[in-house]
Amino acid sequence: MTSVFNDSHAVETAFYDAFRRLDTDRMRALWIDDESAACVHPGGDLLQGRIAVMESWAEIFRAAQPPDVGFTVLSADVRDDLAIHLVREHVASADGQHARVIATNVYRRTDNGWRMQLHHASLPLVEKGTARQPTRPLH
Amino acid sequence: MTSVFNDSHAVETAFYDAFRRLDTDRMRALWIDDESAACVHPGGDLLQGRIAVMESWAEIFRAAQPPDVGFTVLSADVRDDLAIHLVREHVASADGQHARVIATNVYRRTDNGWRMQLHHASLPLVEKGTARQPTRPLH
Repeated sequence: MTSVFNDSHAVETAFYDAFRRLDTDRMRALWIDDESAACVHPGGDLLQGRIAVMESWAEIFRAAQPPDVGFTVLSADVRDDLAIHLVREHVASADGQHARVIATNVYRRTDNGWRMQLHHASLPLVEKGTARQPTRPLH
Repeated sequence: MTSVFNDSHAVETAFYDAFRRLDTDRMRALWIDDESAACVHPGGDLLQGRIAVMESWAEIFRAAQPPDVGFTVLSADVRDDLAIHLVREHVASADGQHARVIATNVYRRTDNGWRMQLHHASLPLVEKGTARQPTRPLH
């Protein structure tokens, strides 16, 4: 699959679409194809380089049910060839629970259009009434 | 306090120094002075704008003991006026526990030198033998 994305928002839409469909081919087509690729899954360590990042998505997709995930862009700082988006992901689980995840997504313009370079997602903030979120920040 | 930083690494060093000293004035002097300031503390929601970000640091510093915190730069993508660093923070607590925190730090070059624009820190990865880290990513 070869996809050319004209801006960072198009890559982001494709990213969450690939995630929703657990589509490894689509995911591969939108990540940058070099060692600058980097990813922090919720609760996980930093993965660096395209191979490590793509292996992590393949592993996640093998184990998962297609998630009900949406996203809201909270800010987008777009430069000539680099864009930094702050995003709130909305994840609904089968039992009706809703979780919010804050993510920093970085996109870079390459010779093959815009690609995702970094996805850093934190553990879910749990909605009011549950207790996952610490009462005060750890730092 | 007016500080002018010549590059993103100088801001980063000042950031962790201010954190180590719980020094609110130093912290204020290195953050960007506009609404693009954004911060995700470990386990927390996104804070946007200089006022919200600085209030969060002041609150954290009031409650905290000076932390034993170091950092390792895992990657630095530095452009003309924007730099994205991926950092591993090393935090040692008084009881000898060590924790690692992955952070995305974004810096921007302004008319007053380089400033911090974004700090996104995840919850600590706990060292082997403890159980905080999920066995597989949540997404």
